[in-house]
Amino acid sequence: MALRYLTAQLAQKIDEELMSTAGAFSLDQLMELAGLACAQTLATVYSKEEYPRVLVCCGPGNQGGDGLVAARHLGMFGYKPTIWMPKPGGKDIYQRLQTQCDNMKIPTLAPSQDTSSLRDALARSDVVLDAIFGFSFKPPVRAPFDTALPLIGSSGLPIVSVDIPSGWDVEKGNAEGLGLDPDVLISLTAPKEGVRKFMGRHFLGGRFVTKTLEEKYNLNLPEYPGFSQIVELPRPTEEGQKL
Amino acid sequence: MALRYLTAQLAQKIDEELMSTAGAFSLDQLMELAGLACAQTLATVYSKEEYPRVLVCCGPGNQGGDGLVAARHLGMFGYKPTIWMPKPGGKDIYQRLQTQCDNMKIPTLAPSQDTSSLRDALARSDVVLDAIFGFSFKPPVRAPFDTALPLIGSSGLPIVSVDIPSGWDVEKGNAEGLGLDPDVLISLTAPKEGVRKFMGRHFLGGRFVTKTLEEKYNLNLPEYPGFSQIVELPRPTEEGQKL
Repeated sequence: MALRYLTAQLAQKIDEELMSTAGAFSLDQLMELAGLACAQTLATVYSKEEYPRVLVCCGPGNQGGDGLVAARHLGMFGYKPTIWMPKPGGKDIYQRLQTQCDNMKIPTLAPSQDTSSLRDALARSDVVLDAIFGFSFKPPVRAPFDTALPLIGSSGLPIVSVDIPSGWDVEKGNAEGLGLDPDVLISLTAPKEGVRKFMGRHFLGGRFVTKTLEEKYNLNLPEYPGFSQIVELPRPTEEGQKL
Repeated sequence: MALRYLTAQLAQKIDEELMSTAGAFSLDQLMELAGLACAQTLATVYSKEEYPRVLVCCGPGNQGGDGLVAARHLGMFGYKPTIWMPKPGGKDIYQRLQTQCDNMKIPTLAPSQDTSSLRDALARSDVVLDAIFGFSFKPPVRAPFDTALPLIGSSGLPIVSVDIPSGWDVEKGNAEGLGLDPDVLISLTAPKEGVRKFMGRHFLGGRFVTKTLEEKYNLNLPEYPGFSQIVELPRPTEEGQKL
Protein backbone atom coordinates (compact mmCIF):
# COMPACT_ATOMS: atom_id res chain seq x y z
CA MET A 1 0.00 0.00 0.00
CA ALA A 2 1.44 3.34 -1.04
CA LEU A 3 2.07 6.22 1.32
CA ARG A 4 -0.72 8.77 1.08
CA TYR A 5 0.02 12.36 0.11
CA LEU A 6 -2.35 14.81 1.80
CA THR A 7 -4.31 17.66 0.35
CA ALA A 8 -4.17 20.91 2.34
CA GLN A 9 -7.72 20.24 3.49
CA LEU A 10 -7.01 16.73 4.76
CA ALA A 11 -3.83 17.87 6.52
CA GLN A 12 -5.92 20.51 8.28
CA LYS A 13 -8.57 17.96 9.20
CA ILE A 14 -6.07 15.52 10.72
CA ASP A 15 -4.44 18.34 12.67
CA GLU A 16 -7.82 19.39 14.05
CA GLU A 17 -8.67 15.82 14.92
CA LEU A 18 -5.40 15.34 16.85
CA MET A 19 -6.16 18.46 18.89
CA SER A 20 -9.88 17.83 19.34
CA THR A 21 -11.32 16.58 22.62
CA ALA A 22 -11.23 13.10 21.11
CA GLY A 23 -7.60 13.35 20.00
CA ALA A 24 -6.67 15.12 23.24
CA PHE A 25 -3.30 16.48 22.14
CA SER A 26 -2.33 20.00 23.09
CA LEU A 27 -0.58 22.29 20.64
CA ASP A 28 2.36 22.36 23.09
CA GLN A 29 2.78 18.60 22.82
CA LEU A 30 2.50 18.34 19.05
CA MET A 31 4.76 21.33 18.47
CA GLU A 32 7.37 19.90 20.83
CA LEU A 33 7.47 16.58 18.99
CA ALA A 34 7.33 18.23 15.55
CA GLY A 35 10.14 20.65 16.37
CA LEU A 36 12.23 17.85 17.85
CA ALA A 37 11.76 15.85 14.63
CA CYS A 38 12.88 18.88 12.58
CA ALA A 39 16.00 19.33 14.71
CA GLN A 40 16.81 15.61 14.48
CA THR A 41 16.43 15.66 10.70
CA LEU A 42 18.81 18.58 10.30
CA ALA A 43 21.27 16.94 12.72
CA THR A 44 21.06 13.66 10.78
CA VAL A 45 22.13 15.27 7.51
CA TYR A 46 24.28 18.23 8.59
CA SER A 47 26.76 17.58 11.41
CA LYS A 48 27.37 20.28 14.00
CA GLU A 49 31.10 20.04 13.29
CA GLU A 50 30.72 20.98 9.62
CA TYR A 51 27.49 23.00 9.77
CA PRO A 52 27.37 24.59 13.23
CA ARG A 53 25.59 27.83 12.32
CA VAL A 54 21.91 27.18 11.57
CA LEU A 55 19.69 30.03 10.46
CA VAL A 56 16.19 29.11 11.58
CA CYS A 57 13.67 31.03 9.46
CA CYS A 58 10.26 31.17 11.09
CA GLY A 59 6.93 32.21 9.62
CA PRO A 60 4.06 33.84 11.48
CA GLY A 61 1.98 30.66 11.91
CA ASN A 62 2.27 27.30 13.64
CA GLN A 63 5.22 26.32 11.50
CA GLY A 64 7.14 29.24 12.98
CA GLY A 65 6.46 27.62 16.35
CA ASP A 66 7.91 24.32 15.12
CA GLY A 67 10.95 26.34 14.05
CA LEU A 68 11.37 27.88 17.52
CA VAL A 69 11.18 24.44 19.14
CA ALA A 70 13.70 23.12 16.60
CA ALA A 71 16.04 26.06 17.31
CA ARG A 72 16.01 25.24 21.03
CA HIS A 73 16.73 21.54 20.45
CA LEU A 74 19.48 22.40 17.96
CA GLY A 75 21.02 24.62 20.64
CA MET A 76 20.81 21.67 23.06
CA PHE A 77 22.51 19.45 20.45
CA GLY A 78 25.45 21.87 20.29
CA TYR A 79 24.62 23.85 17.15
CA LYS A 80 24.73 27.65 17.04
CA PRO A 81 21.26 28.60 15.84
CA THR A 82 20.10 32.10 14.97
CA ILE A 83 16.41 32.89 14.58
CA TRP A 84 14.89 35.04 11.89
CA MET A 85 11.21 35.60 12.66
CA PRO A 86 10.19 38.89 11.08
CA LYS A 87 6.48 38.61 11.97
CA PRO A 88 6.13 36.86 15.34
CA GLY A 89 2.75 35.15 15.66
CA GLY A 90 0.26 36.48 18.17
CA LYS A 91 -0.42 33.28 20.12
CA ASP A 92 0.91 33.05 23.67
CA ILE A 93 2.81 29.88 22.78
CA TYR A 94 5.13 31.70 20.37
CA GLN A 95 6.10 34.11 23.09
CA ARG A 96 6.85 31.25 25.48
CA LEU A 97 8.89 29.36 22.87
CA GLN A 98 10.76 32.58 22.07
CA THR A 99 11.56 33.09 25.76
CA GLN A 100 12.88 29.51 25.96
CA CYS A 101 15.23 30.33 23.07
CA ASP A 102 16.24 33.64 24.69
CA ASN A 103 17.09 31.69 27.85
CA MET A 104 19.36 29.48 25.72
CA LYS A 105 21.09 32.67 24.50
CA ILE A 106 19.97 31.90 20.96
CA PRO A 107 20.01 35.24 19.12
CA THR A 108 16.92 36.42 17.26
CA LEU A 109 17.25 39.05 14.54
CA ALA A 110 15.15 42.14 15.30
CA PRO A 111 11.75 41.83 13.55
CA SER A 112 11.80 44.02 10.49
CA GLN A 113 10.33 44.36 7.04
CA ASP A 114 13.83 45.11 5.87
CA THR A 115 15.71 41.96 4.84
CA SER A 116 19.23 43.37 5.14
CA SER A 117 19.72 41.69 8.52
CA LEU A 118 18.61 38.42 6.92
CA ARG A 119 21.17 38.92 4.17
CA ASP A 120 23.92 39.45 6.75
CA ALA A 121 22.80 36.44 8.76
CA LEU A 122 22.81 34.22 5.67
CA ALA A 123 26.43 35.21 5.07
CA ARG A 124 27.28 33.97 8.56
CA SER A 125 25.35 30.68 8.38
CA ASP A 126 26.13 27.13 7.25
CA VAL A 127 22.62 25.77 6.74
CA VAL A 128 19.04 27.09 6.73
CA LEU A 129 16.03 25.56 8.45
CA ASP A 130 13.01 26.77 6.49
CA ALA A 131 10.03 26.92 8.84
CA ILE A 132 8.35 29.82 7.08
CA PHE A 133 5.19 28.46 5.47
CA GLY A 134 3.31 25.27 6.29
CA PHE A 135 0.31 23.45 4.92
CA SER A 136 -2.00 26.42 5.55
CA PHE A 137 -0.01 28.59 3.15
CA LYS A 138 -1.97 30.30 0.42
CA PRO A 139 -0.30 32.49 -2.19
CA PRO A 140 0.74 35.19 -2.73
CA VAL A 141 3.93 35.38 -0.67
CA ARG A 142 3.69 38.60 1.32
CA ALA A 143 6.38 41.02 2.52
CA PRO A 144 8.96 40.57 3.86
CA PHE A 145 8.92 36.94 2.76
CA ASP A 146 8.61 37.92 -0.92
CA THR A 147 12.10 39.39 -0.82
CA ALA A 148 13.38 36.86 1.71
CA LEU A 149 12.74 33.72 -0.34
CA PRO A 150 14.95 34.79 -3.28
CA LEU A 151 17.65 35.86 -0.79
CA ILE A 152 17.58 32.48 0.95
CA GLY A 153 17.40 30.65 -2.36
CA SER A 154 20.39 32.44 -3.85
CA SER A 155 22.51 32.15 -0.69
CA GLY A 156 23.98 28.85 -1.86
CA LEU A 157 23.38 27.39 1.62
CA PRO A 158 21.85 23.95 2.04
CA ILE A 159 18.19 24.19 3.03
CA VAL A 160 16.09 21.90 5.20
CA SER A 161 12.41 22.65 4.69
CA VAL A 162 9.64 21.80 7.10
CA ASP A 163 6.50 20.11 5.70
CA ILE A 164 6.24 22.09 2.48
CA PRO A 165 9.12 24.11 1.00
CA SER A 166 8.27 27.78 1.43
CA GLY A 167 6.69 29.30 -1.64
CA TRP A 168 5.43 25.95 -2.95
CA ASP A 169 1.75 25.33 -3.45
CA VAL A 170 0.72 22.70 -0.88
CA GLU A 171 -0.85 20.60 -3.61
CA LYS A 172 0.76 21.65 -6.88
CA GLY A 173 4.31 21.95 -5.63
CA ASN A 174 6.80 24.34 -7.16
CA ALA A 175 5.07 24.45 -10.56
CA GLU A 176 5.51 28.20 -10.78
CA GLY A 177 9.14 28.06 -9.67
CA LEU A 178 8.70 30.73 -7.01
CA GLY A 179 9.58 28.59 -4.02
CA LEU A 180 12.76 27.45 -2.31
CA ASP A 181 14.68 24.46 -3.65
CA PRO A 182 15.56 22.55 -0.47
CA ASP A 183 18.07 19.72 -0.22
CA VAL A 184 16.17 18.05 2.60
CA LEU A 185 12.51 17.92 3.52
CA ILE A 186 10.90 16.87 6.79
CA SER A 187 7.20 16.12 6.31
CA LEU A 188 5.09 16.15 9.44
CA THR A 189 2.32 13.60 10.12
CA ALA A 190 2.19 12.60 6.42
CA PRO A 191 3.64 14.20 3.25
CA LYS A 192 1.57 16.71 1.30
CA GLU A 193 0.49 16.37 -2.34
CA GLY A 194 2.86 19.11 -3.49
CA VAL A 195 6.03 17.23 -2.52
CA ARG A 196 5.23 13.98 -4.32
CA LYS A 197 8.08 14.51 -6.75
CA PHE A 198 10.56 16.01 -4.30
CA MET A 199 13.93 14.50 -5.23
CA GLY A 200 16.06 15.43 -2.19
CA ARG A 201 16.39 13.51 1.05
CA HIS A 202 12.92 13.23 2.50
CA PHE A 203 12.14 12.44 6.13
CA LEU A 204 8.88 11.94 7.96
CA GLY A 205 8.21 13.06 11.53
CA GLY A 206 5.21 13.17 13.84
CA ARG A 207 5.33 9.86 15.67
CA PHE A 208 2.04 10.60 17.40
CA VAL A 209 -0.44 9.44 14.76
CA THR A 210 -2.39 6.51 16.18
CA LYS A 211 -3.02 3.34 14.17
CA THR A 212 -6.74 4.19 14.25
CA LEU A 213 -6.17 7.60 12.70
CA GLU A 214 -3.73 6.14 10.19
CA GLU A 215 -6.27 3.54 9.09
CA LYS A 216 -9.18 5.97 9.05
CA TYR A 217 -7.38 8.10 6.45
CA ASN A 218 -5.42 5.30 4.71
CA LEU A 219 -2.16 7.06 5.44
CA ASN A 220 -0.04 3.89 5.07
CA LEU A 221 2.78 5.37 7.08
CA PRO A 222 6.17 3.65 7.04
CA GLU A 223 7.60 2.07 10.20
CA TYR A 224 9.80 4.34 12.25
CA PRO A 225 13.09 2.68 13.26
CA GLY A 226 13.76 1.90 16.94
CA PHE A 227 12.84 4.84 19.10
CA SER A 228 13.61 7.47 16.49
CA GLN A 229 11.22 10.39 15.98
CA ILE A 230 11.97 10.43 12.24
CA VAL A 231 12.09 7.96 9.35
CA GLU A 232 13.69 8.53 5.95
CA LEU A 233 11.45 7.93 2.94
CA PRO A 234 12.70 6.29 -0.27
CA ARG A 235 13.31 8.62 -3.21
CA PRO A 236 10.65 8.82 -5.91
CA THR A 237 11.30 7.52 -9.41
CA GLU A 238 10.83 9.86 -12.36
CA GLU A 239 7.15 9.02 -12.46
CA GLY A 240 6.64 10.23 -8.93
CA GLN A 241 6.34 6.69 -7.57
CA LYS A 242 8.28 5.71 -4.50
CA LEU A 243 10.92 3.02 -5.17
CA MET B 1 33.49 18.97 38.50
CA ALA B 2 31.21 16.31 39.91
CA LEU B 3 27.59 15.87 38.95
CA ARG B 4 25.34 17.45 41.57
CA TYR B 5 22.74 15.36 43.38
CA LEU B 6 19.65 17.35 44.28
CA THR B 7 17.78 17.61 47.53
CA ALA B 8 13.99 17.33 47.24
CA GLN B 9 13.77 21.06 47.87
CA LEU B 10 16.22 22.00 45.14
CA ALA B 11 14.55 19.63 42.65
CA GLN B 12 11.27 21.36 43.42
CA LYS B 13 12.84 24.79 43.00
CA ILE B 14 14.35 23.98 39.61
CA ASP B 15 11.04 22.51 38.43
CA GLU B 16 9.23 25.68 39.48
CA GLU B 17 11.84 27.84 37.79
CA LEU B 18 11.49 25.94 34.50
CA MET B 19 7.73 26.51 34.57
CA SER B 20 7.81 30.10 35.82
CA THR B 21 7.17 33.05 33.52
CA ALA B 22 10.94 33.38 33.22
CA GLY B 23 11.50 29.71 32.36
CA ALA B 24 8.42 29.70 30.13
CA PHE B 25 8.01 25.93 29.83
CA SER B 26 4.54 24.44 30.05
CA LEU B 27 3.89 21.25 31.99
CA ASP B 28 2.80 19.69 28.68
CA GLN B 29 6.20 20.31 27.15
CA LEU B 30 8.29 19.11 30.08
CA MET B 31 6.15 16.04 30.60
CA GLU B 32 6.36 15.15 26.91
CA LEU B 33 10.16 15.31 26.92
CA ALA B 34 10.44 13.55 30.29
CA GLY B 35 8.11 10.73 29.25
CA LEU B 36 9.92 10.34 25.95
CA ALA B 37 13.23 10.05 27.84
CA CYS B 38 11.70 7.34 30.08
CA ALA B 39 10.45 5.38 27.07
CA GLN B 40 13.82 5.69 25.32
CA THR B 41 15.65 4.48 28.44
CA LEU B 42 13.48 1.39 28.74
CA ALA B 43 13.84 0.73 25.00
CA THR B 44 17.63 1.10 25.26
CA VAL B 45 17.93 -1.63 27.88
CA TYR B 46 14.97 -3.94 27.18
CA SER B 47 14.28 -4.74 23.53
CA LYS B 48 10.70 -5.02 22.32
CA GLU B 49 11.50 -8.47 20.91
CA GLU B 50 12.49 -9.90 24.31
CA TYR B 51 10.45 -7.64 26.60
CA PRO B 52 7.36 -6.60 24.66
CA ARG B 53 4.91 -6.40 27.56
CA VAL B 54 5.59 -3.33 29.70
CA LEU B 55 3.54 -2.70 32.82
CA VAL B 56 3.56 1.05 33.33
CA CYS B 57 2.79 1.79 36.99
CA CYS B 58 1.65 5.37 37.50
CA GLY B 59 1.26 7.34 40.71
CA PRO B 60 -1.25 10.11 41.36
CA GLY B 61 1.16 13.01 40.79
CA ASN B 62 3.22 14.46 37.95
CA GLN B 63 5.32 11.33 37.74
CA GLY B 64 2.18 9.41 36.84
CA GLY B 65 1.85 11.84 33.93
CA ASP B 66 5.41 11.06 32.81
CA GLY B 67 4.38 7.40 32.93
CA LEU B 68 1.36 7.99 30.69
CA VAL B 69 3.52 9.83 28.14
CA ALA B 70 6.08 7.01 28.30
CA ALA B 71 3.34 4.41 27.77
CA ARG B 72 2.20 6.18 24.61
CA HIS B 73 5.71 6.42 23.20
CA LEU B 74 6.40 2.77 24.08
CA GLY B 75 3.24 1.88 22.16
CA MET B 76 4.57 3.92 19.22
CA PHE B 77 7.90 2.05 19.47
CA GLY B 78 6.06 -1.28 19.11
CA TYR B 79 5.88 -2.41 22.73
CA LYS B 80 2.64 -3.69 24.30
CA PRO B 81 2.20 -1.45 27.34
CA THR B 82 -0.47 -1.85 29.99
CA ILE B 83 -1.18 0.95 32.45
CA TRP B 84 -1.81 0.55 36.15
CA MET B 85 -2.91 3.87 37.62
CA PRO B 86 -5.02 3.15 40.67
CA LYS B 87 -5.46 6.79 41.73
CA PRO B 88 -5.64 8.99 38.61
CA GLY B 89 -4.54 12.54 39.35
CA GLY B 90 -7.10 15.34 39.22
CA LYS B 91 -5.34 17.65 36.74
CA ASP B 92 -6.83 18.01 33.29
CA ILE B 93 -3.53 16.95 31.73
CA TYR B 94 -3.75 13.42 33.17
CA GLN B 95 -7.14 12.97 31.58
CA ARG B 96 -5.81 14.13 28.21
CA LEU B 97 -2.75 11.88 28.43
CA GLN B 98 -4.99 8.99 29.42
CA THR B 99 -7.23 9.62 26.39
CA GLN B 100 -4.17 9.62 24.14
CA CYS B 101 -3.28 6.17 25.50
CA ASP B 102 -6.88 4.97 25.11
CA ASN B 103 -6.72 6.09 21.47
CA MET B 104 -3.60 3.94 21.07
CA LYS B 105 -5.64 1.00 22.44
CA ILE B 106 -3.28 0.76 25.39
CA PRO B 107 -5.25 -1.01 28.14
CA THR B 108 -5.54 0.55 31.58
CA LEU B 109 -6.45 -1.61 34.56
CA ALA B 110 -9.63 -0.41 36.29
CA PRO B 111 -8.69 1.92 39.19
CA SER B 112 -9.07 0.00 42.40
CA GLN B 113 -7.73 -0.23 45.93
CA ASP B 114 -7.57 -3.95 45.37
CA THR B 115 -4.24 -5.07 43.95
CA SER B 116 -5.38 -8.41 42.54
CA SER B 117 -5.58 -6.97 39.01
CA LEU B 118 -2.03 -5.69 39.47
CA ARG B 119 -0.93 -9.17 40.51
CA ASP B 120 -2.49 -10.65 37.37
CA ALA B 121 -0.96 -7.97 35.17
CA LEU B 122 2.50 -8.58 36.63
CA ALA B 123 2.18 -12.25 35.69
CA ARG B 124 1.55 -11.20 32.08
CA SER B 125 4.37 -8.63 31.85
CA ASP B 126 8.05 -8.71 30.90
CA VAL B 127 9.26 -5.48 32.48
CA VAL B 128 7.90 -2.77 34.82
CA LEU B 129 8.19 0.98 34.37
CA ASP B 130 7.92 2.43 37.87
CA ALA B 131 6.43 5.92 37.62
CA ILE B 132 4.69 5.79 40.98
CA PHE B 133 6.48 8.27 43.24
CA GLY B 134 8.72 11.17 42.25
CA PHE B 135 10.78 13.76 44.06
CA SER B 136 7.77 15.14 45.94
CA PHE B 137 7.20 11.79 47.66
CA LYS B 138 6.96 11.87 51.43
CA PRO B 139 6.46 8.71 53.48
CA PRO B 140 4.47 6.79 54.48
CA VAL B 141 3.48 4.83 51.37
CA ARG B 142 -0.32 4.89 51.27
CA ALA B 143 -2.84 2.32 50.00
CA PRO B 144 -2.96 0.77 47.51
CA PHE B 145 0.72 1.44 46.89
CA ASP B 146 1.69 -0.07 50.26
CA THR B 147 0.59 -3.49 49.04
CA ALA B 148 1.60 -2.82 45.44
CA LEU B 149 5.29 -2.15 46.06
CA PRO B 150 5.97 -5.58 47.64
CA LEU B 151 3.97 -7.23 44.82
CA ILE B 152 6.02 -5.46 42.15
CA GLY B 153 9.25 -6.10 44.03
CA SER B 154 8.63 -9.82 44.41
CA SER B 155 7.45 -10.29 40.82
CA GLY B 156 10.97 -11.06 39.63
CA LEU B 157 10.46 -8.70 36.69
CA PRO B 158 13.13 -6.19 35.73
CA ILE B 159 12.20 -2.68 36.91
CA VAL B 160 12.97 0.68 35.35
CA SER B 161 12.35 3.45 37.89
CA VAL B 162 11.71 7.07 37.06
CA ASP B 163 13.66 9.70 39.02
CA ILE B 164 13.55 8.04 42.43
CA PRO B 165 12.71 4.35 42.94
CA SER B 166 9.27 4.18 44.53
CA GLY B 167 9.39 3.84 48.29
CA TRP B 168 12.87 5.40 48.56
CA ASP B 169 13.41 8.55 50.52
CA VAL B 170 14.33 11.27 48.00
CA GLU B 171 17.43 12.14 50.03
CA LYS B 172 18.25 9.09 52.17
CA GLY B 173 17.59 6.46 49.54
CA ASN B 174 16.43 2.98 50.45
CA ALA B 175 17.91 3.07 53.96
CA GLU B 176 14.80 1.49 55.44
CA GLY B 177 14.63 -1.15 52.72
CA LEU B 178 10.95 -0.50 51.98
CA GLY B 179 11.38 0.59 48.37
CA LEU B 180 11.70 -1.13 45.03
CA ASP B 181 15.06 -2.45 43.88
CA PRO B 182 15.19 -1.36 40.23
CA ASP B 183 17.67 -2.59 37.63
CA VAL B 184 17.59 0.69 35.74
CA LEU B 185 17.02 4.28 36.80
CA ILE B 186 16.21 7.30 34.68
CA SER B 187 16.85 10.53 36.59
CA LEU B 188 15.13 13.63 35.25
CA THR B 189 16.82 17.05 35.08
CA ALA B 190 19.52 15.96 37.58
CA PRO B 191 19.82 12.95 39.93
CA LYS B 192 18.50 13.18 43.47
CA GLU B 193 20.54 12.74 46.67
CA GLY B 194 18.89 9.43 47.48
CA VAL B 195 20.23 7.63 44.39
CA ARG B 196 23.89 8.56 44.85
CA LYS B 197 24.83 4.95 45.50
CA PHE B 198 22.45 3.36 43.00
CA MET B 199 24.43 0.51 41.43
CA GLY B 200 22.25 -0.37 38.41
CA ARG B 201 22.32 1.23 34.98
CA HIS B 202 21.60 4.90 35.49
CA PHE B 203 20.44 7.29 32.77
CA LEU B 204 19.75 11.00 32.80
CA GLY B 205 16.95 12.68 30.84
CA GLY B 206 15.54 16.18 30.62
CA ARG B 207 17.48 17.81 27.82
CA PHE B 208 15.77 21.13 28.42
CA VAL B 209 17.95 22.55 31.21
CA THR B 210 19.65 25.68 29.92
CA LYS B 211 23.35 26.35 30.50
CA THR B 212 22.35 29.35 32.63
CA LEU B 213 20.19 27.21 34.92
CA GLU B 214 22.86 24.52 35.02
CA GLU B 215 25.51 27.02 36.08
CA LYS B 216 23.24 28.82 38.55
CA TYR B 217 22.81 25.56 40.49
CA ASN B 218 26.22 24.00 39.73
CA LEU B 219 24.54 20.95 38.25
CA ASN B 220 27.61 19.92 36.20
CA LEU B 221 25.49 17.85 33.84
CA PRO B 222 27.22 15.41 31.49
CA GLU B 223 27.09 15.92 27.72
CA TYR B 224 24.24 14.19 25.95
CA PRO B 225 25.39 12.25 22.88
CA GLY B 226 24.28 13.38 19.41
CA PHE B 227 20.60 14.18 19.41
CA SER B 228 19.66 11.68 22.08
CA GLN B 229 17.24 12.67 24.84
CA ILE B 230 19.13 10.50 27.36
CA VAL B 231 22.70 9.96 28.51
CA GLU B 232 24.00 7.03 30.55
CA LEU B 233 25.89 7.92 33.73
CA PRO B 234 28.98 6.03 34.91
CA ARG B 235 28.46 3.61 37.81
CA PRO B 236 29.48 4.74 41.28
CA THR B 237 32.36 3.13 43.12
CA GLU B 238 31.79 1.63 46.57
CA GLU B 239 32.35 5.06 48.11
CA GLY B 240 29.53 6.57 46.16
CA GLN B 241 31.89 8.42 43.84
CA LYS B 242 31.37 8.29 40.12
CA LEU B 243 34.19 6.54 38.22
